[in-house]
Amino acid sequence: MGRVTQRRTIARVTVGPATAEGGGIEVKVGPDTLVAEEPLEIRVGAAGAPRPPLAVTMRTPGDDVDLAIGFLLTEGIIRSAGDVRTAQLCAGDQEPNTYNVVDVALAAGVPAPEVDPARNFYTTSSCGVCGKASIDAVRTRSLFDVAADDVRVAPAVLAGLPDALREGQRAFRTTGGLHAAGLFTAGGELVCLREDVGRHNAVDKVVGWAVRQGRLPLAGHVLMVSGRASFELCQKAWMAGIPVLAAVSAPSTLAVDVAAEAGLTLVGFLRGQTFNVYVGAQRVVGLEQVAAPVARSAAATAVTAPGPGSRP
Amino acid sequence: MGRVTQRRTIARVTVGPATAEGGGIEVKVGPDTLVAEEPLEIRVGAAGAPRPPLAVTMRTPGDDVDLAIGFLLTEGIIRSAGDVRTAQLCAGDQEPNTYNVVDVALAAGVPAPEVDPARNFYTTSSCGVCGKASIDAVRTRSLFDVAADDVRVAPAVLAGLPDALREGQRAFRTTGGLHAAGLFTAGGELVCLREDVGRHNAVDKVVGWAVRQGRLPLAGHVLMVSGRASFELCQKAWMAGIPVLAAVSAPSTLAVDVAAEAGLTLVGFLRGQTFNVYVGAQRVVGLEQVAAPVARSAAATAVTAPGPGSRP
Repeated sequence: MGRVTQRRTIARVTVGPATAEGGGIEVKVGPDTLVAEEPLEIRVGAAGAPRPPLAVTMRTPGDDVDLAIGFLLTEGIIRSAGDVRTAQLCAGDQEPNTYNVVDVALAAGVPAPEVDPARNFYTTSSCGVCGKASIDAVRTRSLFDVAADDVRVAPAVLAGLPDALREGQRAFRTTGGLHAAGLFTAGGELVCLREDVGRHNAVDKVVGWAVRQGRLPLAGHVLMVSGRASFELCQKAWMAGIPVLAAVSAPSTLAVDVAAEAGLTLVGFLRGQTFNVYVGAQRVVGLEQVAAPVARSAAATAVTAPGPGSRP
Repeated sequence: MGRVTQRRTIARVTVGPATAEGGGIEVKVGPDTLVAEEPLEIRVGAAGAPRPPLAVTMRTPGDDVDLAIGFLLTEGIIRSAGDVRTAQLCAGDQEPNTYNVVDVALAAGVPAPEVDPARNFYTTSSCGVCGKASIDAVRTRSLFDVAADDVRVAPAVLAGLPDALREGQRAFRTTGGLHAAGLFTAGGELVCLREDVGRHNAVDKVVGWAVRQGRLPLAGHVLMVSGRASFELCQKAWMAGIPVLAAVSAPSTLAVDVAAEAGLTLVGFLRGQTFNVYVGAQRVVGLEQVAAPVARSAAATAVTAPGPGSRP
């Protein structure tokens, strides 16, 4: 895990109160620990055939095979660990070996994604859904009926997740620069936690771990993320069969729309003892009676432009 | 600007202290304002010719033409406003008109980016550099010699930027879900502020505005961003000729490496009266004497794997 962080010399500055001379500053020069960000190229194809690059993502090194597997699952390219024959970190074309390439050979009968050499693409550390040919194709379709998942979660369990996530973030405590994704049981027990410079990579690492463990669909689980809830994170939860997505920060309109379409429960601004439920409130104990109006609001506005229905 | 936010009905939950019965909850159902997230397709080509889609980005509607122009500039596809013949929001193929397509016709003699119909790609709200064919091609090259920019910024000015940014974030105050990028003079005067669900989009909107104003290179300016400093944001600052990038949160190792290569000043954890300088300290008044050791640390570690030089 040595490559997850690096030490650099930095200047720490504290600005003093303003004076007639403009105010003084205190400067300390010393070592600081930064989170590593490096490209990872994911190559996919049939065993025994040339495997072209499918994507390059900017990620924090570590759990790279899980990241690749999770990416392929949430992109709809594989459906289970059985669709993968081999997946390994390899040298790529660079010397010395940077371990920045994961090579995935698909099992017999699994169609390779359509990639031609001119179509390689690049994803950043926040990018989860790349290589799409049109706006409509941005959406993926899940194998799992998340809407039918009747798990119920106690509010006190939800309120405890941010602390549990932070507790598990070893690297965060040293760099302050990593996002985290934690998979929890409905009772609040931490199952798997991963950190990355990119929010989507952290989720892909969790999902890839679960794929390799044969745990999909992740029915009855809660996925907690450290940042905001984008529509891509809702899609990834849906693809993995996770019924509850909780975020420290705000969701977007499209995240709520996708959650409503999937039948996900979407929780945001989960901080201290408070949180917001945007859709799927029936899974939160004590909120059964408010599930209907909240769901109607999401359904009424699940169109591109806001209509009269969006103003309750 | 009505599409920047939408109102939804949500449930706000406060968890009470634990009791023998498991503790009570307070639930309030009411309207909430969410930040809008919608796809924007950017089409680019010669005037009078078919213009294929170059990218789809998930963005907050508003300043869409600036976003497209800024994206094209920071991707190295255009060099100035003179390279663009027309740029307009148009209907695309969808009915009713969603205003989710920007069509850019390049000026005569400006080469169109190489795009074939199979190579369309998708960028998320955090994606700034897409469609690259290899890890090496991830990096862009700037027209501007940022390293030669001898602007100097007072520590008290830097310390005042977060409040100035927050002051200008009208939408943030209602949704809590928007990133911001602010362009400031070296004296701390706000020149242009843009918000978006994606950090990179906010920066592209600022840069696109400046391109259309004929202001590039943005010598002597400071770019302040609300999130972390990724390597893509350093590249975008470099492409726009901005010598100082300041971020509320942490930079990654690769961000420091790119900043060192470009000759940028990189400031992170800019909060309250304190901040860190990772490279380019000679531009911060009073830090001239520490610029050398900080720069050496960045230069010594500007390789993929950490070496002995990274431990001061």
